[in-house]
Amino acid sequence: MSLAAELSARLKRTADGLVCAVVVDHATAEVLMVAWMDDEALERTLTTRRGTYFSRSRKRLWVKGETSGHTQHVREVRIDCDGDTLLVRVDQTGPACHTETHSCFDGEERLLLADG
Amino acid sequence: MSLAAELSARLKRTADGLVCAVVVDHATAEVLMVAWMDDEALERTLTTRRGTYFSRSRKRLWVKGETSGHTQHVREVRIDCDGDTLLVRVDQTGPACHTETHSCFDGEERLLLADG
Repeated sequence: MSLAAELSARLKRTADGLVCAVVVDHATAEVLMVAWMDDEALERTLTTRRGTYFSRSRKRLWVKGETSGHTQHVREVRIDCDGDTLLVRVDQTGPACHTETHSCFDGEERLLLADG
Repeated sequence: MSLAAELSARLKRTADGLVCAVVVDHATAEVLMVAWMDDEALERTLTTRRGTYFSRSRKRLWVKGETSGHTQHVREVRIDCDGDTLLVRVDQTGPACHTETHSCFDGEERLLLADG
């Protein structure tokens, strides 16, 4: 499975061949999580509409929810001005975070600077 | 200028000493841009409430808007579950993108997969 040449040429990948993916809730616009995609993860995400990423720690593709059941239906994908970041809008089933919070940024202990 | 030890210990930095910063519009929750912070950029962002990042290409700190005037007042900063990403809520003056679009993801040519 390979990306279309035109899209591939637009991507500015890290030395490891990855681009950053910011995943937001389609309904609320809330940022749910940030993960990484290699070319195959992006191609699979675009063709299957299931949020698919590359795990830097496990060094393999993973489909979000493959073990937890907390899957993502991908509604829209955008690329940023310089081609190194993707914005992925999803319908999230269950919590997006492995700690069971809705987003990976929820919770008192994750607040570094309060509104001001 | 250095980060508090407790916060420093929570950060999971890249080999280059950086963490990813997702910047969102405080009013609309829209994702405006993604940039990178080293310890000093984060410390300055927290203490000055001016969005401050580390440019990987120029290898130096930059205060958003220092040349364009499109500054950011930082309303809130959060860290994610595994300490490698920050969520920065800002009041954005003018366009956030250097291409003069409101966000770095705006525009027809940046749409890779349409709503479905």
